[in-house]
Amino acid sequence: MSLDQVCTRFHIALELIGARWSGAVIHMIFKGAHRYADLKAAIPGINDTMLARRLRELEAAGLVERRVLATSPVRVEYHLTEMGQELRPALDQLVDWSHKWIPLPEAAESA
Amino acid sequence: MSLDQVCTRFHIALELIGARWSGAVIHMIFKGAHRYADLKAAIPGINDTMLARRLRELEAAGLVERRVLATSPVRVEYHLTEMGQELRPALDQLVDWSHKWIPLPEAAESA
Repeated sequence: MSLDQVCTRFHIALELIGARWSGAVIHMIFKGAHRYADLKAAIPGINDTMLARRLRELEAAGLVERRVLATSPVRVEYHLTEMGQELRPALDQLVDWSHKWIPLPEAAESA
Repeated sequence: MSLDQVCTRFHIALELIGARWSGAVIHMIFKGAHRYADLKAAIPGINDTMLARRLRELEAAGLVERRVLATSPVRVEYHLTEMGQELRPALDQLVDWSHKWIPLPEAAESA
């Protein structure tokens, strides 16, 4: 395998989870938010356009599966595929790293 | 710590390494490419403007240290700080994941 090919795949992976909000969406599905409204509530600042777009992108990339439950009324849930679930160790490491190294935004919330 | 704060820091971390080429630059410094020319040669498709910008951004964020060696002629090297080095487990996991799940770009190189 050439360096080009290694780089290309790593690159695609980073762009996939590095797109604004994508990592947060995946992380919140891990944490048990499976419905659109739960995801929206769990991710501060995301709007409907962006959440819907990210869910479609993650579904197209094979990380997220959209399930339509035959309840009445019909219910839609978002779950991680095996591909999505296997991102967990990398994202967990990244969460730990960010908690150690990224400073809290100063007083932004308490103002 | 509020969910907002957790999300914000994770988010900043993802944007930092998710920016186009940033992850590749960090990964290649890990791999031993410390000089500008080595980095440029190791990352297929990156241009001078982008490599210089990413190095400045990573330096400003505290992940990369720019060392000026008192040789003649003067030599500049890029090294990871402790903050940058501690990203390694997360990036290694992501490389493994991408090799398992991201398909090789078909025949793009062999055309």
